[in-house]
Amino acid sequence: MAGQNRIRNAQLRSKIMTADQAAALIPKGCNVGMSGFTGAGYPKAVPMALADRMNAASAAGHKFKISVWTGASTAPELDGALAKVDGMELRLPYQSDPTCRKRINAGEMEYLDIHLSHVGQFVWGGFLGKLDVAIIEVVGIREDGSLIPSSSVGNNKTWLDCADKIIIEVNHWQNEALEGMHDVYYGTQLPPKRKPIPIISVSDRIGETSLRCDPAKVIAIVETNAPDRNSPFSPPDDTSRGIAENIVEFFGHEVKKGRLPKELLPIQSGVGNVANAVMEQLQSAPYDNLMAYTEVLQDGMFNLLRSGKMSFASATALSLSPNAAEEFNRDVRLYHDRMVFRPQEISNHPEVIRRLGLIAMNGLIEADIYGNVNSTHIRGTSIMNGIGGSGDFARNAWLSIFMTPSSAKNGAVSCIVPMATHVDHTEHDVQVIVTEQGLADLRGLSPKKRARVIIDNCAHPIFKPALSEYLERAMKYSHGQHTPHILDEAFTFLPEWQADRAAQEAWKEDSVVQNDAWK
Amino acid sequence: MAGQNRIRNAQLRSKIMTADQAAALIPKGCNVGMSGFTGAGYPKAVPMALADRMNAASAAGHKFKISVWTGASTAPELDGALAKVDGMELRLPYQSDPTCRKRINAGEMEYLDIHLSHVGQFVWGGFLGKLDVAIIEVVGIREDGSLIPSSSVGNNKTWLDCADKIIIEVNHWQNEALEGMHDVYYGTQLPPKRKPIPIISVSDRIGETSLRCDPAKVIAIVETNAPDRNSPFSPPDDTSRGIAENIVEFFGHEVKKGRLPKELLPIQSGVGNVANAVMEQLQSAPYDNLMAYTEVLQDGMFNLLRSGKMSFASATALSLSPNAAEEFNRDVRLYHDRMVFRPQEISNHPEVIRRLGLIAMNGLIEADIYGNVNSTHIRGTSIMNGIGGSGDFARNAWLSIFMTPSSAKNGAVSCIVPMATHVDHTEHDVQVIVTEQGLADLRGLSPKKRARVIIDNCAHPIFKPALSEYLERAMKYSHGQHTPHILDEAFTFLPEWQADRAAQEAWKEDSVVQNDAWK
Repeated sequence: MAGQNRIRNAQLRSKIMTADQAAALIPKGCNVGMSGFTGAGYPKAVPMALADRMNAASAAGHKFKISVWTGASTAPELDGALAKVDGMELRLPYQSDPTCRKRINAGEMEYLDIHLSHVGQFVWGGFLGKLDVAIIEVVGIREDGSLIPSSSVGNNKTWLDCADKIIIEVNHWQNEALEGMHDVYYGTQLPPKRKPIPIISVSDRIGETSLRCDPAKVIAIVETNAPDRNSPFSPPDDTSRGIAENIVEFFGHEVKKGRLPKELLPIQSGVGNVANAVMEQLQSAPYDNLMAYTEVLQDGMFNLLRSGKMSFASATALSLSPNAAEEFNRDVRLYHDRMVFRPQEISNHPEVIRRLGLIAMNGLIEADIYGNVNSTHIRGTSIMNGIGGSGDFARNAWLSIFMTPSSAKNGAVSCIVPMATHVDHTEHDVQVIVTEQGLADLRGLSPKKRARVIIDNCAHPIFKPALSEYLERAMKYSHGQHTPHILDEAFTFLPEWQADRAAQEAWKEDSVVQNDAWK
Repeated sequence: MAGQNRIRNAQLRSKIMTADQAAALIPKGCNVGMSGFTGAGYPKAVPMALADRMNAASAAGHKFKISVWTGASTAPELDGALAKVDGMELRLPYQSDPTCRKRINAGEMEYLDIHLSHVGQFVWGGFLGKLDVAIIEVVGIREDGSLIPSSSVGNNKTWLDCADKIIIEVNHWQNEALEGMHDVYYGTQLPPKRKPIPIISVSDRIGETSLRCDPAKVIAIVETNAPDRNSPFSPPDDTSRGIAENIVEFFGHEVKKGRLPKELLPIQSGVGNVANAVMEQLQSAPYDNLMAYTEVLQDGMFNLLRSGKMSFASATALSLSPNAAEEFNRDVRLYHDRMVFRPQEISNHPEVIRRLGLIAMNGLIEADIYGNVNSTHIRGTSIMNGIGGSGDFARNAWLSIFMTPSSAKNGAVSCIVPMATHVDHTEHDVQVIVTEQGLADLRGLSPKKRARVIIDNCAHPIFKPALSEYLERAMKYSHGQHTPHILDEAFTFLPEWQADRAAQEAWKEDSVVQNDAWK
């Protein structure tokens, strides 16, 4: 490792130590803000060293837990390692780790599921308590002590500003040429001192290319050389291609009606296979100069940038497959004027999202016939991942689209249900629902009309009769006919309707994982 | 009536006619945008004349219906009259009229319940179809043909800009001295052309004092002399005073902790007795130079302005009791530099709400133990009023407070329930719940901790044991322990727990009106 090259501030070079030494500086019971967003830019050594220390403490009969705040999801080396040793008292604002999820749903660890745009102001406002330590992965340290962010920005600015102590991981695996691609805005304030966020166009730069860092707060620097989580990219299957086709056809319809400009509007897209399939579909669609204002840049969007179909993308994290990452690293200079990475308080800021007029596309676990969307809970009780940024985008977008396969668990479970068992996006915030079966444009429709179009256009044919029967029964027996429901049956009608015992079991299984995690 | 004085544009004076003549110009089946927001500034003659025409058509065996779009709620002369003759095909975005509500819940009329900040952009975007006619109440018409708004601005700008034809009601009852108190912003755009809304402080003026109006579109002018709905102000009862005391005590706590500045932050407040009680409580609280950025200026807030405790209020409507209205009319000049009325797309704009850092206080129908709030539906099926602006404010505020008596129907029904039967504000958007029993600060709490504090602090003592038992049972039997629930019992546990038969019936009665309509 060539510390001299990456750590250009002489004073800070004296703080270099091992991950174990750094982990030893973290007090038990403290709040730790870590970098990391969708498996990108998270610290890779210190959390594992800390997990070892926790394990040793546990073996010696002591409890050693911390609270972990991040940008969004991380990886096995962070959430996985700490969850395995039961080292997290509390986790916020988003996770997608299997061990972590298991502990949360077993009631063994606390989890705060927060809009990603709210985290910064909650911490600044003192709503979540004091941040003790920040652990931030960077590409390098400049002469002036400022930090060059790596593959995600997330909440790093907030953590560095608010924490008492800072531990820096300098990751030599991350490309040094990332320097200059970030835009860290230092104009945010607490009310009543807030000013407009001056982004008018997706590509506007309003901040600095590095993170300010008070050298007096730095207690350790650890050098690493480890890749991001980067999972392989799976090509779209028939279902996700079907969803993507329906969305792109809808765009064509909206452009024809004059409700979308011919280069569309800036795109926000969740994470996962369906999102990638939509991007692939746009590759051959008749739209040029596409723009994106989103959280995560995945393979699908990267391909649009590479081919020139997309002229600019703003995100807070870069989450590529190993193949795409290799290509990106080779040609990184090409992308310096086509991409920018911002703090999540800006990538997800309601003001900017509303102003830019985004087309928001997010996944879900289940949608009900009236258009309420559950993005977070299996059967209303077990957390899957979290709401992430979907609420920031859906509420403030120009067009709010939710997309899902019509069924999960190999067809045993309908993703369209009579009544959502948990609501993350209310009927007021869901404009379009799309499955591989078709698309329901809910704009301007009252609840019963929404129910008809969702069942007709989006439900899987196997579940259509049952959903229709529920609606008919509700329209017959519900006292209130604005949103007809039979509360006694709302959660049981669909599973009981199924003849197949295995399907009933699959439905009732609380811990079932219905879909891949798009956010 | 002195048409010459109020209608200063000579060309437009030629369009003066009776309400019946004007109503005859409205084609059946069309979309009509009317002024009106919380019983203020709605047209008072033409809708009634139109209802007569509909009645006559009905007697002759014809159907005559229109779709009615407004700012928010209106009054018996508009919603009441049209609902009585079954003259509305569809209503949006908010209503609070008993006849209207009855028709909606009987399935006889369509209702779109929309965030008030979204209406303007939905219409501009063509999401709701073409607006055919606008019927707008004004104080007068200027020489240049522009319109002086009356006691509400609502969506009037959008209706005037988008409608094919315009009918104006000049109401001589409205005070001419209102002229100059409005601020109509003409800088909004469709994406991708949007710019920042340049409001930095509550009192900033960014627009014009009158509404632009194309004289070529004006097909009728009707003169009226009729008061706004203005309901009498009822002094706070013990329950609402209890809620208010808990909120003001909480403000003190937050100021002490440094989480609120000593003059607080701009206040948004829903409508109704509890809101008025909070304002009354602030009268004697140790805060000066209070500000408000809200939808409706009621008696409570007016009294704060009058006494000088509040230095400035921005709203979209003025809804005073007859006594307060008389006083306001007498001293109106005094308030020209303490108040401004804006279009609801600005009073409810997410960008401005977030920037100003509001303290949002809204009512609810029921809150569940995990902090999900139902603002709209009785027992999940019957609409009460609508979400109004509560979503705009709660999501984007600095502090999002929901307030309710702990029980309704003379104590027979708990307003804290195991699971909300409809969700308008998700767990992600609710920071504080307060009843006359106490206050639950949910910030930083995971779901089970929220449940504990909501039950302990907010529930009525009569319902505490049942709610605790549900939580305990759920923590024992729910497979998922992130948000423990027993879905089969979630909607029935509390009513069945009640020994009293009358209480059970009250609970089960779908059409029960639980609380007064705060929004």
